[in-house]
Amino acid sequence: MNEITATGRGLFITLEGGEGAGKTTQLAFIRDWFEHRGHTVQVTRQPGGTPLSERIRELLLDPAQGDMTPLAELLLLFADRAQFLADVVRPALARGEVVLCDRFTDSTRAYQGGGRGMAADTIETLARLVHGDVEPDLTLLLDLPVETGMARAGARGEADRMESAGMAFHEAVRRAYRDLAKGEPERVKLIDASASAAEVSRAINEILEQIHV
Amino acid sequence: MNEITATGRGLFITLEGGEGAGKTTQLAFIRDWFEHRGHTVQVTRQPGGTPLSERIRELLLDPAQGDMTPLAELLLLFADRAQFLADVVRPALARGEVVLCDRFTDSTRAYQGGGRGMAADTIETLARLVHGDVEPDLTLLLDLPVETGMARAGARGEADRMESAGMAFHEAVRRAYRDLAKGEPERVKLIDASASAAEVSRAINEILEQIHV
Repeated sequence: MNEITATGRGLFITLEGGEGAGKTTQLAFIRDWFEHRGHTVQVTRQPGGTPLSERIRELLLDPAQGDMTPLAELLLLFADRAQFLADVVRPALARGEVVLCDRFTDSTRAYQGGGRGMAADTIETLARLVHGDVEPDLTLLLDLPVETGMARAGARGEADRMESAGMAFHEAVRRAYRDLAKGEPERVKLIDASASAAEVSRAINEILEQIHV
Repeated sequence: MNEITATGRGLFITLEGGEGAGKTTQLAFIRDWFEHRGHTVQVTRQPGGTPLSERIRELLLDPAQGDMTPLAELLLLFADRAQFLADVVRPALARGEVVLCDRFTDSTRAYQGGGRGMAADTIETLARLVHGDVEPDLTLLLDLPVETGMARAGARGEADRMESAGMAFHEAVRRAYRDLAKGEPERVKLIDASASAAEVSRAINEILEQIHV
């Protein structure tokens, strides 16, 4: 029924979604779900997870860099990802662990592609080069209307960052995410994240129950 | 006779070669050659030429990064190059200037490809993505035996760096460079750099005289 099965090499699960979608809460739920069933879980995030990431993050945020070109930014993100796959993901999967990652290349597709208009061809060329044989086994996409996400982020005092990027940007990101779920329905599961955290966890539980691990 | 002609969009010339080949001396000769003929010359280098470069250089040299994967390193080099082409090379060529660059993607082909065994396909995929429509009009390859280069670098107190990489590495770099000259004889001009600086300059002069600028 579902193609997601343990292949004896661990399980690579990514969590995606816009601001205010509740990723942090659900990450904890998914981690507990697998640990409860006796699995070792690596919770990690992109960009992040290696010392190189922190330096690249500094670079991306450094105002002294002025106008970084979208292509240079994309190459930095994938440099980080290449190191992350080598240092974190591949070793954990080889040990048979569950790797649970807060954002991965679908974020690049949604934000750099959908949001900023970087050509899909360019992103996919880099994805093929960097992913090699490692693709997420399952991607949980927490989807909610931009206004709802913005209201939630506002309640956390994070509204400025969202508002500064603009509604049109976040709408484009959401559309790109939803298109990914349509294009790869076996891998990318769209979850209505406008519901309560408990309801979202229930929806995630239903999906995870179908994975035979 | 020679396909290198001014196209009304400036001229992009790169200088390549191993350690001790005399690139610095010849860069000055080429700059003077063009300035003497009334051209504006941008002398620059790769990696380098933008604020991003300095930060990426720090990253590549930072021991705290541990074992950076060859692919992550390659992506960082090309991120630098994307920014460099956007900020330095394209604008200068659009103004009709001569861009004279100490090392470019042929160095990546020779050092990361030939020297470290990174797949040529991977390098060419990134080169196509990052170069776009900008390729060097002319590449001057200063070629000399590894022992000669090492002796010259030794006289400058730079022998440690070369010896630490090993003779086999530098031989592989040289072979890769020479293969590039064989594969693209119109663009990549192999120059015997074991001769005196004055003789090398005369050889470069002969090549430049054939460019109708």
